[in-house]
Amino acid sequence: MKLLVILPVLKDEANEERNRRELSHLKGPNLSFELRSLLNGPASIESEFDDRMASPWVLNEVMKARTGDFDAIFVSCMGDVATNAARELTNIPVIAPLQTCLAVASTLGDRFGVVTVLKNLVPVLHRKAREYGYDQNLSGIRSIEIPVLEIENKRRQVVEALVSESKKLVEADRADSVILGCTGLLGVAKEVQDHVDVPVLDPVPISVRFAEMLVATGLSRSGKAFPPPPKKLRNLPGIEGLVRKN
Amino acid sequence: MKLLVILPVLKDEANEERNRRELSHLKGPNLSFELRSLLNGPASIESEFDDRMASPWVLNEVMKARTGDFDAIFVSCMGDVATNAARELTNIPVIAPLQTCLAVASTLGDRFGVVTVLKNLVPVLHRKAREYGYDQNLSGIRSIEIPVLEIENKRRQVVEALVSESKKLVEADRADSVILGCTGLLGVAKEVQDHVDVPVLDPVPISVRFAEMLVATGLSRSGKAFPPPPKKLRNLPGIEGLVRKN
Amino acid sequence: MKLLVILPVLKDEANEERNRRELSHLKGPNLSFELRSLLNGPASIESEFDDRMASPWVLNEVMKARTGDFDAIFVSCMGDVATNAARELTNIPVIAPLQTCLAVASTLGDRFGVVTVLKNLVPVLHRKAREYGYDQNLSGIRSIEIPVLEIENKRRQVVEALVSESKKLVEADRADSVILGCTGLLGVAKEVQDHVDVPVLDPVPISVRFAEMLVATGLSRSGKAFPPPPKKLRNLPGIEGLVRKN
Amino acid sequence: MKLLVILPVLKDEANEERNRRELSHLKGPNLSFELRSLLNGPASIESEFDDRMASPWVLNEVMKARTGDFDAIFVSCMGDVATNAARELTNIPVIAPLQTCLAVASTLGDRFGVVTVLKNLVPVLHRKAREYGYDQNLSGIRSIEIPVLEIENKRRQVVEALVSESKKLVEADRADSVILGCTGLLGVAKEVQDHVDVPVLDPVPISVRFAEMLVATGLSRSGKAFPPPPKKLRNLPGIEGLVRKN
Amino acid sequence: MKLLVILPVLKDEANEERNRRELSHLKGPNLSFELRSLLNGPASIESEFDDRMASPWVLNEVMKARTGDFDAIFVSCMGDVATNAARELTNIPVIAPLQTCLAVASTLGDRFGVVTVLKNLVPVLHRKAREYGYDQNLSGIRSIEIPVLEIENKRRQVVEALVSESKKLVEADRADSVILGCTGLLGVAKEVQDHVDVPVLDPVPISVRFAEMLVATGLSRSGKAFPPPPKKLRNLPGIEGLVRKN
Amino acid sequence: MKLLVILPVLKDEANEERNRRELSHLKGPNLSFELRSLLNGPASIESEFDDRMASPWVLNEVMKARTGDFDAIFVSCMGDVATNAARELTNIPVIAPLQTCLAVASTLGDRFGVVTVLKNLVPVLHRKAREYGYDQNLSGIRSIEIPVLEIENKRRQVVEALVSESKKLVEADRADSVILGCTGLLGVAKEVQDHVDVPVLDPVPISVRFAEMLVATGLSRSGKAFPPPPKKLRNLPGIEGLVRKN
Repeated sequence: MKLLVILPVLKDEANEERNRRELSHLKGPNLSFELRSLLNGPASIESEFDDRMASPWVLNEVMKARTGDFDAIFVSCMGDVATNAARELTNIPVIAPLQTCLAVASTLGDRFGVVTVLKNLVPVLHRKAREYGYDQNLSGIRSIEIPVLEIENKRRQVVEALVSESKKLVEADRADSVILGCTGLLGVAKEVQDHVDVPVLDPVPISVRFAEMLVATGLSRSGKAFPPPPKKLRNLPGIEGLVRKN
Repeated sequence: MKLLVILPVLKDEANEERNRRELSHLKGPNLSFELRSLLNGPASIESEFDDRMASPWVLNEVMKARTGDFDAIFVSCMGDVATNAARELTNIPVIAPLQTCLAVASTLGDRFGVVTVLKNLVPVLHRKAREYGYDQNLSGIRSIEIPVLEIENKRRQVVEALVSESKKLVEADRADSVILGCTGLLGVAKEVQDHVDVPVLDPVPISVRFAEMLVATGLSRSGKAFPPPPKKLRNLPGIEGLVRKN
Repeated sequence: MKLLVILPVLKDEANEERNRRELSHLKGPNLSFELRSLLNGPASIESEFDDRMASPWVLNEVMKARTGDFDAIFVSCMGDVATNAARELTNIPVIAPLQTCLAVASTLGDRFGVVTVLKNLVPVLHRKAREYGYDQNLSGIRSIEIPVLEIENKRRQVVEALVSESKKLVEADRADSVILGCTGLLGVAKEVQDHVDVPVLDPVPISVRFAEMLVATGLSRSGKAFPPPPKKLRNLPGIEGLVRKN
Repeated sequence: MKLLVILPVLKDEANEERNRRELSHLKGPNLSFELRSLLNGPASIESEFDDRMASPWVLNEVMKARTGDFDAIFVSCMGDVATNAARELTNIPVIAPLQTCLAVASTLGDRFGVVTVLKNLVPVLHRKAREYGYDQNLSGIRSIEIPVLEIENKRRQVVEALVSESKKLVEADRADSVILGCTGLLGVAKEVQDHVDVPVLDPVPISVRFAEMLVATGLSRSGKAFPPPPKKLRNLPGIEGLVRKN
Repeated sequence: MKLLVILPVLKDEANEERNRRELSHLKGPNLSFELRSLLNGPASIESEFDDRMASPWVLNEVMKARTGDFDAIFVSCMGDVATNAARELTNIPVIAPLQTCLAVASTLGDRFGVVTVLKNLVPVLHRKAREYGYDQNLSGIRSIEIPVLEIENKRRQVVEALVSESKKLVEADRADSVILGCTGLLGVAKEVQDHVDVPVLDPVPISVRFAEMLVATGLSRSGKAFPPPPKKLRNLPGIEGLVRKN
Repeated sequence: MKLLVILPVLKDEANEERNRRELSHLKGPNLSFELRSLLNGPASIESEFDDRMASPWVLNEVMKARTGDFDAIFVSCMGDVATNAARELTNIPVIAPLQTCLAVASTLGDRFGVVTVLKNLVPVLHRKAREYGYDQNLSGIRSIEIPVLEIENKRRQVVEALVSESKKLVEADRADSVILGCTGLLGVAKEVQDHVDVPVLDPVPISVRFAEMLVATGLSRSGKAFPPPPKKLRNLPGIEGLVRKN
């Protein structure tokens, strides 16, 4: 499987390198990645504003990719940035990591919790979960109050806070699994899981392996749920790959 | 009330004129409008792709407006384009017409239906209704299969199709009210209602009057549900009003 | 708009005067009120028993009003006393303030709480919210344990208790807005809102402005949800306006 | 068990006699009935208006009965007239037949339907089912369009219509049991069941036997869900048994 | 009514005797019991593993009973062991005590809690409640951490723990009634109820009286929800009563 | 990954061979299967009775496998036979194909349907979907009325019926994907999908690839949702692998 990984944030060499390193642990004989960040957009996704501002450039990458070069696309952000729209543009699988983790967690237990970076994201993720139909089994969403861009430099503090909030999800909110609510939290799930008594889901490897599963079984989004956009005039400056302009 | 009406589509004189005409019927002693279309974006909103592509320019208008010039903002499209994000940027009311109509319909009866323009929009509106928590009482969503840009020229055909689909919503799906699922359908609700036995909701006047109600009672969005985006680097070319760039 | 305001409690000059005073703040060029209390019934509504006992006299007022004298009717009690039945009797809008506040709150955030006067009302309001289809997003209902008839004399204590319970709704129950769960709590919402970080909804002005919105858009209840009662023998002594007796 | 059966309609000898005859089939060694109709109120319950107008006199009977003379009270109407309020007044079981049938049907299968007399009652029963939390498993509500007062004289037509509508509930709406949605339909369930392939629930015997079950197990309503009304001034002319006036 | 009571656990004289004693309190002129334990299976049901391992022998008893000797069957365990399958085999009522208590509690208030023996059973009962469609109104499930086989010897400790957990259900989880979540807890409900302010449901007498109610009204499971298993080869050693082997 | 595939039906050489053939298409460099049928139990699973009768022998295979020989277990039947109980016995992933397909389908669209073999299975699968929390998005379940054991000999008829019922799910029930509701329907999904406009999910390859995804990411069931059964006396004749007998 050749996977296009879109980091829906401003290009940053350190961030790309960190993601490449983590993804390299996942490589297999038939698995290769291509990683792309945005030339425009926000430095991180911590609001619906960020989500909306990143979307055209994410979709630009999706449109440029519609040439058979990839088997699946993974937009690496728990805001599932523009993934529904992306599915209207391509018939290869587009992996939305929040949705994927909610689906996977629902097979591991009955009630899952999410721990994310900032409390700003709590209502955002809650609304997405509701949109996906997973509201009923979502025990709660908690946050560690560390911004995305500080995760890398505060790794010990991040892990401690994740453990602390995960325990609240399990004990107070009765979650039986915990989803890490930011793809920037990659590489710490095992460490967190050692301290709580339930599965801890790391969205990055889960999304990659879920993509493999879909590709291996020949599945992709329903064209009835995500029909191709009608052709018409669209004036989209800077969106280079735009093949549907008219 | 001074209301900023954003048409989240490419500027088109005829469309603006038509909207101005309809809005003028709503004017009152203390009600004035300012109408703005987009210089970039799609000509109409008929997919999540269109929604995402229009969003930055809609938000650009919202950001430019945050100077006390307006009492409320109405994004005139049933896709509720970027309205959640807009609420993160301003503390004046931002009217999302689909959400508004779902709320109003829920006070008129028990089960409402929606009739929109194209079947492409059916899953889009369904997911929004689910996000808003109105899935339970939504009887069904049907479409007339006439694109937004042809509504003006096919008015008779539009009305006939709306009547026909509304009747199906009432009789087969057991709806007790019908929401017109596109703000481009403005000005025909009364005519449709004459032929079906239930209230027919025209989103444009309802949104304007709902905005008046919020302004008059001093209400606006919850800052807990729509917290201001954290400050950080955002590279957003062409977004002229961007005050939160860094 | 000429609005009939029914206070569904025993006539009490002080109470009527207090309501007139508050309503006078809402007056506009085209807005006038007529206020009516009951000659029979309970002194306040704090149970389903009170609700049922007040209902015939509320409906009597509704029936007397069905002569074109009014544009809308507002039954000023969060128990929504007899409002469904009233909608069967008239085709002008009948405003049920609990239902109205639930609908309005659902456009301001994702999860709302209610703070009412006595714990007796908690299950009553909970069942109404469930009937209206708003159970899913209702974070919780709390009470200040001050009876309706003591609100006027304990204003400081009332405000303090409302602030205290509202904070619990926001912090423990994760509400993002708070509805004042008794129309007798009128005139204190702003003061409460100054102390909590979310919108606080005062049902009286919201109901009046919601009525204006419905009247301005020509909307009223669905005749499919609230069909007129079949004609037949009804023996209703003391119900003076009864035009449907046979 | 001594059961007070309240027919929440105007006293009518023929109707009382018919009910006595049906109830007599249910008598057992320890089972006795006392039947009471109303001196005021509507001749039948076919709307929320009827429900509200009958309520004070139903509650009057409940209040008069609070002397230990009865073990349980059954308000014989599928509108569950004033049963919640009655539970606030007494701590013996008050049987609400719609609620009871929904609970019993939920133990016989997964999805139940209701067939009632007039389409006016469809939204009324639907809202009650939603209030009770049974909305999810309610397949549908249909009507035979024969008024309550004509049931007795059109027995053959009633049975045929019940069979026809029940079949629609089973085949089109996927119900696996059918509830007769009017206590006036008593005595025909077996005949209907012979023609459809699912259990048909007759609310009268089910309510009586459910009352026996509660009495035998010492159960009654939760005082937390139905707290006694606070004492205060209530002016209720003609409500003779009123012990809570002040 | 002749009731077959199946204790879905290994035969144990003391346990049978204890159940016979409790059931004898319920006897009436037309009520008789036959009590059967299993010759194979687990000593108690405290997991889905136990449930599955007991099931064939429970169903064996059901099959042996299908000769008109009984009017109803009660499988006395809150895991509702094999009750759905049993309903496929017989058309007399099969009482599932958890389902029965959920249905009965739903008529006593709005939100019920369950207190069971071990925390192992919490997710098991939660999943059953969800299967039955009662998830929405289930406030919570708590446990006393005393195994089934120690209940008899720790009666005082059991009652104290039930009181303590019931209070948490009422106060923290807002339950308005409490269901004892193990049929081994029989005979203590009244004592627990004396200490909490809500109805406490003892599943054994409730199940027996519910069976009487169904038998008296001629009701049993829907054949549409529980169709008879198709005939075919089944190799079931030790299942003596197997009449459907081929 | 070494996968234990349990066919929860009586050993049948032809059936095993057919499954081996289909599974062989899925093999990869690191993927191997071991296939086991039951020496006792039903020849196919078409009822809850079959499910319960097969369960002990399925669990016997699970217990025998708890020695590190396998990475995951797949119980190949859409009844998800004893999978919850199996998860209590082992901490390697146990794949329940119905649950897995519901989770996967929820990432492909908004509303999924199921087409199974016999109408007997419709309520069974419906209850499982409800237990898993997927009731809300399940459009409908339909059946082709061909028994499991006749699928192999009626392949053309099977495909035609699957296409026909799938079209009803899509058009009448508004499903946007279709799940084949019997693992015996393996190998025909692509052919069905050619005739309907939505993804058709074949549970066998999806379950195998889902197992790979879980194994690759180190995930398994939550011990909080599926705690190990307490040790105690269990008399389970013929259950050879029973290590938890006392």
